[in-house]
Amino acid sequence: MEINGVEIEDTFAEGFPIKVARVLITAITEHWALVAAREATGFGTSVIGCSAEAGIESIVGGDETPDGRPGVNIQICNMGYKNLESSLLYRLGQCVLTAPTAAAFSGMSQAEKQFDTGKKLGFFGDGYQKQLEMFGRKVWKIPLMSGDFIIEENFGAVDGIAGGNFLILAQNQAAGLMAAEAAVDAIGRVKGCITPFPGGVVASGSKVGSRYKFLKASTNTAFCTSLREDGV
Amino acid sequence: MEINGVEIEDTFAEGFPIKVARVLITAITEHWALVAAREATGFGTSVIGCSAEAGIESIVGGDETPDGRPGVNIQICNMGYKNLESSLLYRLGQCVLTAPTAAAFSGMSQAEKQFDTGKKLGFFGDGYQKQLEMFGRKVWKIPLMSGDFIIEENFGAVDGIAGGNFLILAQNQAAGLMAAEAAVDAIGRVKGCITPFPGGVVASGSKVGSRYKFLKASTNTAFCTSLREDGV
Amino acid sequence: MEINGVEIEDTFAEGFPIKVARVLITAITEHWALVAAREATGFGTSVIGCSAEAGIESIVGGDETPDGRPGVNIQICNMGYKNLESSLLYRLGQCVLTAPTAAAFSGMSQAEKQFDTGKKLGFFGDGYQKQLEMFGRKVWKIPLMSGDFIIEENFGAVDGIAGGNFLILAQNQAAGLMAAEAAVDAIGRVKGCITPFPGGVVASGSKVGSRYKFLKASTNTAFCTSLREDGV
Amino acid sequence: MEINGVEIEDTFAEGFPIKVARVLITAITEHWALVAAREATGFGTSVIGCSAEAGIESIVGGDETPDGRPGVNIQICNMGYKNLESSLLYRLGQCVLTAPTAAAFSGMSQAEKQFDTGKKLGFFGDGYQKQLEMFGRKVWKIPLMSGDFIIEENFGAVDGIAGGNFLILAQNQAAGLMAAEAAVDAIGRVKGCITPFPGGVVASGSKVGSRYKFLKASTNTAFCTSLREDGV
Repeated sequence: MEINGVEIEDTFAEGFPIKVARVLITAITEHWALVAAREATGFGTSVIGCSAEAGIESIVGGDETPDGRPGVNIQICNMGYKNLESSLLYRLGQCVLTAPTAAAFSGMSQAEKQFDTGKKLGFFGDGYQKQLEMFGRKVWKIPLMSGDFIIEENFGAVDGIAGGNFLILAQNQAAGLMAAEAAVDAIGRVKGCITPFPGGVVASGSKVGSRYKFLKASTNTAFCTSLREDGV
Repeated sequence: MEINGVEIEDTFAEGFPIKVARVLITAITEHWALVAAREATGFGTSVIGCSAEAGIESIVGGDETPDGRPGVNIQICNMGYKNLESSLLYRLGQCVLTAPTAAAFSGMSQAEKQFDTGKKLGFFGDGYQKQLEMFGRKVWKIPLMSGDFIIEENFGAVDGIAGGNFLILAQNQAAGLMAAEAAVDAIGRVKGCITPFPGGVVASGSKVGSRYKFLKASTNTAFCTSLREDGV
Repeated sequence: MEINGVEIEDTFAEGFPIKVARVLITAITEHWALVAAREATGFGTSVIGCSAEAGIESIVGGDETPDGRPGVNIQICNMGYKNLESSLLYRLGQCVLTAPTAAAFSGMSQAEKQFDTGKKLGFFGDGYQKQLEMFGRKVWKIPLMSGDFIIEENFGAVDGIAGGNFLILAQNQAAGLMAAEAAVDAIGRVKGCITPFPGGVVASGSKVGSRYKFLKASTNTAFCTSLREDGV
Repeated sequence: MEINGVEIEDTFAEGFPIKVARVLITAITEHWALVAAREATGFGTSVIGCSAEAGIESIVGGDETPDGRPGVNIQICNMGYKNLESSLLYRLGQCVLTAPTAAAFSGMSQAEKQFDTGKKLGFFGDGYQKQLEMFGRKVWKIPLMSGDFIIEENFGAVDGIAGGNFLILAQNQAAGLMAAEAAVDAIGRVKGCITPFPGGVVASGSKVGSRYKFLKASTNTAFCTSLREDGV
């Protein structure tokens, strides 16, 4: 297959079942919604060594958010629902509740699986938290030094797929990286997708297993430029 | 005390002893060094619920880095050295080794405490990793699909101080936030400092203890705008 | 009228007839399309002292551009078509033709008024420029040191309206600025709009006339905080 | 000559005498200083078709600015002092006076050549402008709707050099662009330099003259990839 002069080997891609929660973070400006979203999705490239896989899905205007403010949809992913609930609690509690002017709403209200993360974070209000109906949603209002933090009571989660990677073979490293950046731009337009690695790119594709008993994955030797005789 | 017409109550600030490692991340451009640095320091606001407190200390030019490429100094902080070693291993392994064109050097070569994080991450090379002398430093070269990842063998860490916060009292929320942003800009110029909360700002200052047995810290009731009769 | 607790005086806004051309700039990545767009729309706040009023209208994905690459829609505005043609020639010639990997397409193909800016810029090709049919459009291919520059032959322009401002009255400067930033975020979602002043905000609203014969507009004295007895 | 494995032909570079003014723009935050600086230096790549060549020289902290706020040093360049005075008047008047919370100071107080741009812009104050001594400088305070605009009375300018370009020969376009971005990062650290083209990069290097009588410069045919038989 060839698109725009690029040869594409239309083969398979790895994929794993994963549990996904979408959270909509709003704030006084798009800038501050992004600040909260970046913090909440950081250190979230792979569940091999991070507590979750997380990334920004999309930026939305006030016409697409419950409170009419600019928003950022993020996804938080874990292999099981138990870890996902923990991720929601800690990532929203540490990175969104603490972010100036931020609020957090569920991006999956219709999901069967629901976590009462908002209610649990409400305890930070030390008894002054209040359950309210706002914007047609059940939310908790938690008094903070900077104002009130509004968070939806329940956050939904669904089955998703992690993986779906593809390899870029390029004439040199810089061209490969530029191609990757262009790909990340394009993927950023696909609804429901995140690219959790740094800048959306994985520099260190791996293979299953290694020569060390304690290591379940290691560098993809067959594709390492400096290990190949042909050097590409 | 008054500076530029702002009344400043020159009193104490909380401070806690903490262990700090500085890591210098370099990449092909400042942009890609920042991408790696942001991922590596994300989800790192407070050790209450994050695996570490982490932030960007400074951006440096190629004249201040071992490999002559643009760099970003980050700090990773934990209460004890054991957790800090774990943080280095996971944050560098998941967020810098995986970042395109990135390299990682110790920012505290003279520290007494040293972790062999680079050697340990080397195992990802599946036997093809090599210990080398580069730029006058002992490094590991790990073959990746995108090229070779260079990481210093040892990363130093020292005793530091966490805390040093101050409260901003403002006429309204927006003015308080703008003041906070100006403060973060100024702190960003102070050598050796990071501001790990979202955008450098804590919206949710806390007090010790709560009415719930399971919660050791809760919202700083006395300063919550919506709980005060005077409303400010 | 009141929206979200903000009192809004629903009165008139100034408006002026103006001529508008929309140009779609594409590039290898969204980043490089934005770089070209920002340069091409800079120094473009008001035709009182700038050669045009110009700004970014929207960012679009490859699915909305002729060449399948990320794009940025900009608007360039002048009081008359003669100046607008000149603006197109100079802003595209100096800021887009010179921008790495950029291409320029008309964003108003159906407009009655058309300028052959692409053909004219083609002369830079020194005889090696070629008229082609690409992406269903008549374009010129101009050989550059960095590759070929693709620019549509004709750029359309239509009658538009400049003005439509509103005043923000706030408790203090910082709150007014934060409100303005939130407004600019919201306006950024409105199709067909630009906000050409710095960051979309005008700090220096003016009144018609002045006490000096040579100055046709001057500071809006009645609303200047420091000139009012009430200080707001 | 070879640096880091890159072959460098250490030959001459074109250079032209030019007149340069440095302006220090400060604002409430670094963000807003940058917003003003970008607008003021936009549409400023080459005096062939722009009213000036302009760019950002450096970002400085409050410890390096007269008013203790974050600042951005910009340079504005013209072939002669008459055009430079005009550029200062229009670029500062349209893009900095209009930018929220911005102030403008001379970055060349010791220069022999001085323009009273601040005094002239003061007329916008419609008689309410005041000459003051602030921060050890002679400034004008101009009442605006958003507060008072502070601008130094005189702006200095000196003889400078424009040019100093170098050509990048790369295996492909993406690698050339990445190399250019790395170069722009490095040049950004050199005191006194700007890179006025889009993103600091010129995609369209030119040669003197053309086959058309009306065109004094045209594409550098000898280096155009698509015109060369060897294709590089």
